[in-house]
Amino acid sequence: MADQDAQSPVGIEPPALPSIRWDEPPEGPVLVLLDQTRLPAEEVGLVCADVPALVRAIQTLAVRGAPLLGIAGAYGVALAAVRGHDVEEAAGLLERARPTAVNLGYGVRRAAAAYWAALDQGDPQRAAAVALAEAKALHREDAEASRRMAQYGLALLDELLPGGGHQLLTHCNSGALVSGGEGTAFAVALRAHRAGRLRRLWVDETRPLLQGARLTAYEAARNGMAYSLLTDNAAGSLFAAGEVDAVLIGADRIAADGSVANKVGSYPLAVLAKYHHVPFIVVAPTTTVDLETADGASIIVEQRPGREVTELTSPQVGPGGEDAGGLHVAPLGAQAYNPAFDITPPELITAIVTEEGAVSPVTGVGLAELCARSSQITIS
Amino acid sequence: MADQDAQSPVGIEPPALPSIRWDEPPEGPVLVLLDQTRLPAEEVGLVCADVPALVRAIQTLAVRGAPLLGIAGAYGVALAAVRGHDVEEAAGLLERARPTAVNLGYGVRRAAAAYWAALDQGDPQRAAAVALAEAKALHREDAEASRRMAQYGLALLDELLPGGGHQLLTHCNSGALVSGGEGTAFAVALRAHRAGRLRRLWVDETRPLLQGARLTAYEAARNGMAYSLLTDNAAGSLFAAGEVDAVLIGADRIAADGSVANKVGSYPLAVLAKYHHVPFIVVAPTTTVDLETADGASIIVEQRPGREVTELTSPQVGPGGEDAGGLHVAPLGAQAYNPAFDITPPELITAIVTEEGAVSPVTGVGLAELCARSSQITIS
Repeated sequence: MADQDAQSPVGIEPPALPSIRWDEPPEGPVLVLLDQTRLPAEEVGLVCADVPALVRAIQTLAVRGAPLLGIAGAYGVALAAVRGHDVEEAAGLLERARPTAVNLGYGVRRAAAAYWAALDQGDPQRAAAVALAEAKALHREDAEASRRMAQYGLALLDELLPGGGHQLLTHCNSGALVSGGEGTAFAVALRAHRAGRLRRLWVDETRPLLQGARLTAYEAARNGMAYSLLTDNAAGSLFAAGEVDAVLIGADRIAADGSVANKVGSYPLAVLAKYHHVPFIVVAPTTTVDLETADGASIIVEQRPGREVTELTSPQVGPGGEDAGGLHVAPLGAQAYNPAFDITPPELITAIVTEEGAVSPVTGVGLAELCARSSQITIS
Repeated sequence: MADQDAQSPVGIEPPALPSIRWDEPPEGPVLVLLDQTRLPAEEVGLVCADVPALVRAIQTLAVRGAPLLGIAGAYGVALAAVRGHDVEEAAGLLERARPTAVNLGYGVRRAAAAYWAALDQGDPQRAAAVALAEAKALHREDAEASRRMAQYGLALLDELLPGGGHQLLTHCNSGALVSGGEGTAFAVALRAHRAGRLRRLWVDETRPLLQGARLTAYEAARNGMAYSLLTDNAAGSLFAAGEVDAVLIGADRIAADGSVANKVGSYPLAVLAKYHHVPFIVVAPTTTVDLETADGASIIVEQRPGREVTELTSPQVGPGGEDAGGLHVAPLGAQAYNPAFDITPPELITAIVTEEGAVSPVTGVGLAELCARSSQITIS
């Protein structure tokens, strides 16, 4: 079951709904997502009362972004537990909902592990409460990680670009909409803005689903940042004109060698940045690092339906998300190659910034050290 | 005045209308353009009975593509002359319609020069006929240039890629829709296809106006070529996977040093090609070379309206072309950076293929030699 509640026209005034919210109305606990497929035109809460509804929301990208998927996965397990559904089945469905973002599986496994450990003591209701507490803890930790990444990220920028007045380029969306806090890469740009050191945020529109044009532009506008939108292929002209001081992106999975899977279009930016001697910075929590995936070649890249490319869809075209269909642009029958992500190898990355600090140059050893530091904190 | 005639649903069967056609119905001579803003959904002839209508068609991209703009410009001068309008004013309007494509000015000046030379002998009607004959000559020459570029281009591919079974990547549209013949870069891929040596044509969708998704896919489908569409930012993944053997693009203006202005997104492909040691080949007639523009920095790049990026438009959204507006994707008030072209420097270009042969490596001297050869032929 998925339904919609509050709906308000977008203006400067009304505060944005949170990206994700646990709620306990009289009819039973639910997870309320800000439906990202409807932004920026409408702020609509998507109410998920069970895991199949949440899985649908994940697959249609109503909820998206690596850290937020982790939080959603953890809450999903808690939702199944609290409602007395089959937790093992729910965890399986959630883990398989999207293959590339490592955080989803992390969040699911973390809440499930807490649940099973508590269940060993016999009380399902208490185990469900423990799972929910674990999800809420992850949510809080992510907000805190976000704050720390922004801090480390801006310190790095100031070190790399002592001039100030940064012109930063970003791809896809990595702000409050992907996080329990203010995000990853976007949070760094936002902190630069608040510190008076952002000259301009260049926002790649991010085809095919236009997360940059729809979501990052929305977040930049809400925060009063100086930003300009561009087609992904216009970034080259900006580099050539010397108008990009650094590239900031998030990550969906980071392999043990430092290879980064992120939204398709990240890799070409890394190549352009290298060619123009511009820092290319990845910002992601240590939960995005997957030490069990050795390298970039081992990362499974999700291939999405070709019609995301052959048809134009927009939140305004129809309210049904993936079922709405779109306007045909390409000839009927056109085939499309539509990978959701690409892989950027460590040699093209200037630094990876996490909540535990930055690693630069990017090496497997450096990355493992940051992760070890993070686990100590999590365990303690 | 601009009006529409024949309209037919697109299928495999009906032959495409020619991109441009001079017609002399009882009510007076007209230029009939295949309205490229309506493809691939509809094949609609756009009838231009005067130069202001043609200028509008050029500015709304109903007619586009460097060589075809040259032909359109020459016919435009002839149209003004034949209808007894002010030829000098018409030529001025046409030359200024779009700033980057050099061929437009070339076609205009060539027909106008023929007109003025003939007018010196006193008979405006004869002078108009001479202008029309010059436009028709340019049209024929362009078709022949297209045939020769395809021949030289395939020979070059076979030399660079002796294995056969080419996987070629192209950007924007450079086929029959931009030319009096079968085009420039696309014509090379088409010739490879007919020779059984095309494994796949990768078609960049080419944001913001989607000339790849709408026009190149349409031409590839009509010609029965194996092709796949992709978002511009997915090309990086193909290079990384070794799935691109060569890049083929057209050009809107080539400076004396070999710098190439072409549809925005060409330069990032050149950087990717260089990084992956893949040949990057520009195919354009010598009329695209502007020896009076010294280098890339001297090329004026047209900046187009930001709403091409902030709104989604499609032929199906509304029939009025640029006036139809589109679906807002970005938040209201979003600013966009929207250059129509970018500049690729000669050091990133493996070869420039013209109707007089190829220059490789690309040098100003080599380019000037090809142009000199071309002028001898044109003069003789």
